[in-house]
Amino acid sequence: MTQTPAKADRDAELSTAEKQLYEDFNRFGLIPLWTEREDLMPMTPAPQAVPHVWHWDDLYPLAARAGDLIPVGRGGERRAISVSNPGLPGLPYATPTLWAAIQYLGPNEVAPAHRHSQNAFRFVLEGEGVWTVVDSDPVAMRRGDLLLTPGWQFHGHHNPHPKPMAWLDGLDIPFVAATDTGFFEFGEDGVTDRSTPHRSRSERIWGHPGLRPLAATATDTPNSPLAAYRWEHTDAALTAQLEVAAEGHPGVVTEPGHAAVRFSNPTTGGDALTTIRTEMHRIAAGERTAAVRETGSSVWQVFDGTGAITLDGKRTDLVRGDVIAVPSWCEVAIEARTDLDLFRFSDAPIFERLNLARREYS
Amino acid sequence: MTQTPAKADRDAELSTAEKQLYEDFNRFGLIPLWTEREDLMPMTPAPQAVPHVWHWDDLYPLAARAGDLIPVGRGGERRAISVSNPGLPGLPYATPTLWAAIQYLGPNEVAPAHRHSQNAFRFVLEGEGVWTVVDSDPVAMRRGDLLLTPGWQFHGHHNPHPKPMAWLDGLDIPFVAATDTGFFEFGEDGVTDRSTPHRSRSERIWGHPGLRPLAATATDTPNSPLAAYRWEHTDAALTAQLEVAAEGHPGVVTEPGHAAVRFSNPTTGGDALTTIRTEMHRIAAGERTAAVRETGSSVWQVFDGTGAITLDGKRTDLVRGDVIAVPSWCEVAIEARTDLDLFRFSDAPIFERLNLARREYS
Amino acid sequence: MTQTPAKADRDAELSTAEKQLYEDFNRFGLIPLWTEREDLMPMTPAPQAVPHVWHWDDLYPLAARAGDLIPVGRGGERRAISVSNPGLPGLPYATPTLWAAIQYLGPNEVAPAHRHSQNAFRFVLEGEGVWTVVDSDPVAMRRGDLLLTPGWQFHGHHNPHPKPMAWLDGLDIPFVAATDTGFFEFGEDGVTDRSTPHRSRSERIWGHPGLRPLAATATDTPNSPLAAYRWEHTDAALTAQLEVAAEGHPGVVTEPGHAAVRFSNPTTGGDALTTIRTEMHRIAAGERTAAVRETGSSVWQVFDGTGAITLDGKRTDLVRGDVIAVPSWCEVAIEARTDLDLFRFSDAPIFERLNLARREYS
Amino acid sequence: MTQTPAKADRDAELSTAEKQLYEDFNRFGLIPLWTEREDLMPMTPAPQAVPHVWHWDDLYPLAARAGDLIPVGRGGERRAISVSNPGLPGLPYATPTLWAAIQYLGPNEVAPAHRHSQNAFRFVLEGEGVWTVVDSDPVAMRRGDLLLTPGWQFHGHHNPHPKPMAWLDGLDIPFVAATDTGFFEFGEDGVTDRSTPHRSRSERIWGHPGLRPLAATATDTPNSPLAAYRWEHTDAALTAQLEVAAEGHPGVVTEPGHAAVRFSNPTTGGDALTTIRTEMHRIAAGERTAAVRETGSSVWQVFDGTGAITLDGKRTDLVRGDVIAVPSWCEVAIEARTDLDLFRFSDAPIFERLNLARREYS
Repeated sequence: MTQTPAKADRDAELSTAEKQLYEDFNRFGLIPLWTEREDLMPMTPAPQAVPHVWHWDDLYPLAARAGDLIPVGRGGERRAISVSNPGLPGLPYATPTLWAAIQYLGPNEVAPAHRHSQNAFRFVLEGEGVWTVVDSDPVAMRRGDLLLTPGWQFHGHHNPHPKPMAWLDGLDIPFVAATDTGFFEFGEDGVTDRSTPHRSRSERIWGHPGLRPLAATATDTPNSPLAAYRWEHTDAALTAQLEVAAEGHPGVVTEPGHAAVRFSNPTTGGDALTTIRTEMHRIAAGERTAAVRETGSSVWQVFDGTGAITLDGKRTDLVRGDVIAVPSWCEVAIEARTDLDLFRFSDAPIFERLNLARREYS
Repeated sequence: MTQTPAKADRDAELSTAEKQLYEDFNRFGLIPLWTEREDLMPMTPAPQAVPHVWHWDDLYPLAARAGDLIPVGRGGERRAISVSNPGLPGLPYATPTLWAAIQYLGPNEVAPAHRHSQNAFRFVLEGEGVWTVVDSDPVAMRRGDLLLTPGWQFHGHHNPHPKPMAWLDGLDIPFVAATDTGFFEFGEDGVTDRSTPHRSRSERIWGHPGLRPLAATATDTPNSPLAAYRWEHTDAALTAQLEVAAEGHPGVVTEPGHAAVRFSNPTTGGDALTTIRTEMHRIAAGERTAAVRETGSSVWQVFDGTGAITLDGKRTDLVRGDVIAVPSWCEVAIEARTDLDLFRFSDAPIFERLNLARREYS
Repeated sequence: MTQTPAKADRDAELSTAEKQLYEDFNRFGLIPLWTEREDLMPMTPAPQAVPHVWHWDDLYPLAARAGDLIPVGRGGERRAISVSNPGLPGLPYATPTLWAAIQYLGPNEVAPAHRHSQNAFRFVLEGEGVWTVVDSDPVAMRRGDLLLTPGWQFHGHHNPHPKPMAWLDGLDIPFVAATDTGFFEFGEDGVTDRSTPHRSRSERIWGHPGLRPLAATATDTPNSPLAAYRWEHTDAALTAQLEVAAEGHPGVVTEPGHAAVRFSNPTTGGDALTTIRTEMHRIAAGERTAAVRETGSSVWQVFDGTGAITLDGKRTDLVRGDVIAVPSWCEVAIEARTDLDLFRFSDAPIFERLNLARREYS
Repeated sequence: MTQTPAKADRDAELSTAEKQLYEDFNRFGLIPLWTEREDLMPMTPAPQAVPHVWHWDDLYPLAARAGDLIPVGRGGERRAISVSNPGLPGLPYATPTLWAAIQYLGPNEVAPAHRHSQNAFRFVLEGEGVWTVVDSDPVAMRRGDLLLTPGWQFHGHHNPHPKPMAWLDGLDIPFVAATDTGFFEFGEDGVTDRSTPHRSRSERIWGHPGLRPLAATATDTPNSPLAAYRWEHTDAALTAQLEVAAEGHPGVVTEPGHAAVRFSNPTTGGDALTTIRTEMHRIAAGERTAAVRETGSSVWQVFDGTGAITLDGKRTDLVRGDVIAVPSWCEVAIEARTDLDLFRFSDAPIFERLNLARREYS
């Protein structure tokens, strides 16, 4: 919204009365629409954020170095290093609404408990051995798992093992910051429960397909009560979609050779988090997705395999761990060289609720 | 609504003008409220249906005899024998809204495909070896499983094995009959797919905890898209509830020693069928449920274990396979001698949607 | 469900073993489906209720005679005379789910307060001067008005004037009776507030188009908080629809020459009552509605004008005050000789919520 | 998010390895959370926007001067002058999500038709004589009226009279800009219908209390189908609330002496616009509202009367036309010297849908 050459030209032509008018606008804290309309209300979304790819092979060593140098305790709270979209310089934002970071926890370290209105998840690219303790329920983290920490639930992490672990954190920090809706609170200095169960209580109660507990407390909740979505289930679901499609049954996959699931809230069938959509995609080797634009932004991470992504016409090769920011209305198409698994998160639930969602296939 | 003695007395005292008035009401097809109010609008529900228990040990041999004598083909469609509530004589109704039957399919028999607006399920007390084919998807039936055939989906059954199999059928036939909302249509004479997969396509696509397919066809549906709820999952969910409660965590079970799950529609979190609630309960040996009354009726079947049920003060021993009809507002309490598993279905979703649901603990 | 000739023939051919089987079914409280399927599950709805028309000119004099002979106090509660569908002999039911009656209140009479889970409304064909007091809010009754008494709200009526008044009562009594979900409670012997305001408090708070009070109590409610829908608004809405359509704007009327409004709950946009849909229709002189069948039943009352209704092919002339019962799946078409205004109520909200609604144009 | 003194101090103490680490973060487009957490995730909302008041007596003369100097045609589209929050310098934003402007249309001028995904409304402080034409429906603008132009509906304005008119425009421009979800399209150069009806077609069809058209097109819509909420209704609703409360009935007003209505969508009972809540408040002379903080921001305009507003402890006198920006979590209390009517709009519907709404009374 800086002054464009066109505006400067126009300024030169202004009459004295007009100049005085613009000065008075300024004096009274006003801005005319007629000089701003094109910037404020473009014909199609014109994000400042740009498409960008970060490589896990760059991220992980930096996180490990931070592990040596930076303590993880109270204040900083988390050893998380966020990607910063080159179109949003100085801001730790993957997109205008989404925050994505690598978080690293060394052997025997503890990230102390806190809570915040921001919704959060962890997605595990590799490794295991850390437990995230969500409202006193210890949740094991293993490769391929999606772990939720919905807004205002206390959560800390602890690593009882001699090996470090790193993962992807996703939050709606930029959205909450832009709308001034965030609250934050410290919890206990450690984590409340250092036990290391294979399955969380949340999974034991809520992780059975189509089965809802009848306890009076098991009411509908805005965010999912299921704290962990395990890779074994996600993998099985994607595998089954491609197999059933291969057996000749229509309507099962997203498009030919492209299986996908959404992580959902079993109490409502809606998104697992109110502000963040989370999905896992599998594209069969040799297949290519239809090019598509959507309002709202997203972040992808390659979970496994190799391929390429084309963002507004620019093609980039993909390997395991790559993190990709996709701004609003950016045209996206993905090719799979090998079978290609990708995790995706986006802000789509916000705009679907507000009648602002649009999608267009090229 | 037959004439009571009180009315007869009153009739005797009527003036000539009054008698003429009542005759004229009758002539014009009218009935006054003031003689009917107490019957029509009782202070609390006054069902004609009565609490009643049928024994599987009576039902099964009769079904087997029917298997020898009655063919299963087109016209009769099903070798199903329904319980008839003694309070609703001559009507094949378990309660005013629910139909419950034992269905029996002999070796190599086929129950031909049809569809109807009535919602239906099968619950398997014992045995296995039949496939129900729902909209061309073959669904294996095994002990402890709940199988859905939502309204207007074609379904037939076939038994490719040398042993007969019997199960419990539940439908909303009386509700649909009372409201004149039923449609029926014949399908192919046989079943469309005689394959015998271990898992249906529906389970392969929808049977993963918290995971929703992203295909454009995977929209919200009024009934569950998941055709089978397998005993292994139900059992695990009930076991986990009791274990987590035993570990000292509150809010997990329905009441102390009483675990329960509802079979739900993963697209909405609501009931698996629009008109029929389906649940599985486990009561730990020695425990007793709180006595409760609810509007609407239900049918229970003992899946395993022994105990007793007290219905409006009358106690009956329970053994495996017993089928129990519970009318509206009947007080129910259940005791478990051994660990006691019970399947339950009810018409609660109808009344919850209509603001007519009430529950009262004694 | 009585024995048909076909069944009798079949019985004659039964083997001894078969006869014994049917006897044993009977002994154990069982009924086979294969002898009942056609009756239980017809191809299309086969209501026992029949189309029927009652005339206000018959109803009103009978109600007036009852006014002379029958007191209105506690016990009988109401001087209401219900229509009894000839297909449901002995039952005071207009259809299997709906109750319709003429209620008559003489000069200075009071119908004492009570409440019940059954939902109720009054529709005023003619006259004025009675107040219905709903949860202590006096609501004036005037020609053309629809007045609500949703389930479990106390209500009584009083007539402070020297002239009698009669109106149409509609309730879901048969539905609630069939499902055993009714509760009833007496209130005070009189009515709590004998004031006679022109507008009820409910209308003063809720009767402004598109405006919702912000008070903490103004939450969404299952039934409408608006106790009265006044004829002046209904008439204006119907008039406007026909005028706007006549000006050439599409999509405004239900079909050419046929304006209609639904009485709705301003907190949700849904039906004014959870179980009963209420509508007002205006058909321009000379127009004819498309013939249509719907699941569920309805009752119409001619508010003004003359015309004819054709029910399953049988045509009946209509004049002011006629009450018409339309069973499920009965084909309905209406012609207007003069401009014809009709009030309608139906059980459609029940079946729309349960996925049992169907409509078919001929 | 500029570097704070605390950060500068810390930088001075960094080891060489740490300095290298931060440089490498920068090189790879990364930002650590531990230096940002406090800014990014404050304990309570810490908006950059500040409370501010603009005066209509400043705004109107500037708008009138613009009317003399600035043409209103294609390109600029509108002669709208927006307030710019002093905490968001250079941005034409009242708050981070809301845009508020005075728009001025001279005699015989036309603001050409366009449409955009941004939701918009007009609120008329004074004057009349302009028609806003929304999807071809001419809607008269008069003092006290709220006029809607929901997202993606074509709209233009024309003033067929010899007097100018000015009003308040409200839009969700900043929210849509921050989330890159906006689309814009030009319509015809003029407006499609220059007729000047007293009531729009939208009001004739939808503006009857509790009455919904039955036409097939009258489905539920995300934004209200009612284009105008007239002052006569708003005033009557506020008057009635205070009167009914004065008669001694509880639960009618928002708090003692404080009446308020929300402009709602009659198809759902929800907010009139998906992203913008609109309300009218009346505070009786001498009354004072309870101090309250809410997440999300709002803009008020004094419609009539005098009083004062206290924002985070700072008290400002209020007169007719004053426009007040209230940032998120700012404590607000209002006193009425005379009876005081205030229009308010806010972004609350966004946060209520996302589980981010909080309110706290002091």
